[in-house]
Amino acid sequence: MTSELHPKVLVSDADAAIDFYTKALDATLVSRVADEQGVVHHAELTLGSSTLALAQSVPEWGWHDPESVGGTPVLLTADVPDPDATAERMVALGAEVVIPVENRPYGKRQGRVKDPFGHLWVVSGELR
Amino acid sequence: MTSELHPKVLVSDADAAIDFYTKALDATLVSRVADEQGVVHHAELTLGSSTLALAQSVPEWGWHDPESVGGTPVLLTADVPDPDATAERMVALGAEVVIPVENRPYGKRQGRVKDPFGHLWVVSGELR
Repeated sequence: MTSELHPKVLVSDADAAIDFYTKALDATLVSRVADEQGVVHHAELTLGSSTLALAQSVPEWGWHDPESVGGTPVLLTADVPDPDATAERMVALGAEVVIPVENRPYGKRQGRVKDPFGHLWVVSGELR
Repeated sequence: MTSELHPKVLVSDADAAIDFYTKALDATLVSRVADEQGVVHHAELTLGSSTLALAQSVPEWGWHDPESVGGTPVLLTADVPDPDATAERMVALGAEVVIPVENRPYGKRQGRVKDPFGHLWVVSGELR
């Protein structure tokens, strides 16, 4: 078995996040597990070759979202075919630009976007 | 081009983190970029089929580590061949168990471990 790593992001509203990530990042919902109260404890989306998992924050379990933590120490780096278009879609759906998408001296076209749930994304692609 | 997603974790000591992730998770260092002051702004490791990026926290850039944020809203889920052994190695290298590795009703063997830099890992594998 080969090891695999993916982020599971905790959010204040899991279904809104599923909607946002599917539309903004062109991710595909693969599974969604909710409890009897309708709280989503695990959902998996695919983003190209990668997995993005998410869940509703549950403070009693130590599952905190960015608003309750007060930020995030993880940059979710998404390599996409058209970073400008991805960042624009994210913003149209409620995200905010932290650093605009521009060609960077290290040979990538990148920007930083804060999604509506407080997670930070590095939207990355090829120079143009 | 296929989209790809990976986490870039911000840490209080990038070289110590490279050392920890290589030893504890059996990750391989692929690249390490430091500035003239020796601050690591980007390092990439591979963990099986996945990428784990990391950098030294730089608060002026909005790059905060878990200690300065006060936690993390991202669970780094690592599927590994032997989750018990991985969690034990992590703990031997300074991590702490939050939830022990055990068989879970949803069909995986999982536990939660907080690494020495404050990032939360779900260490996951097959039932045994």
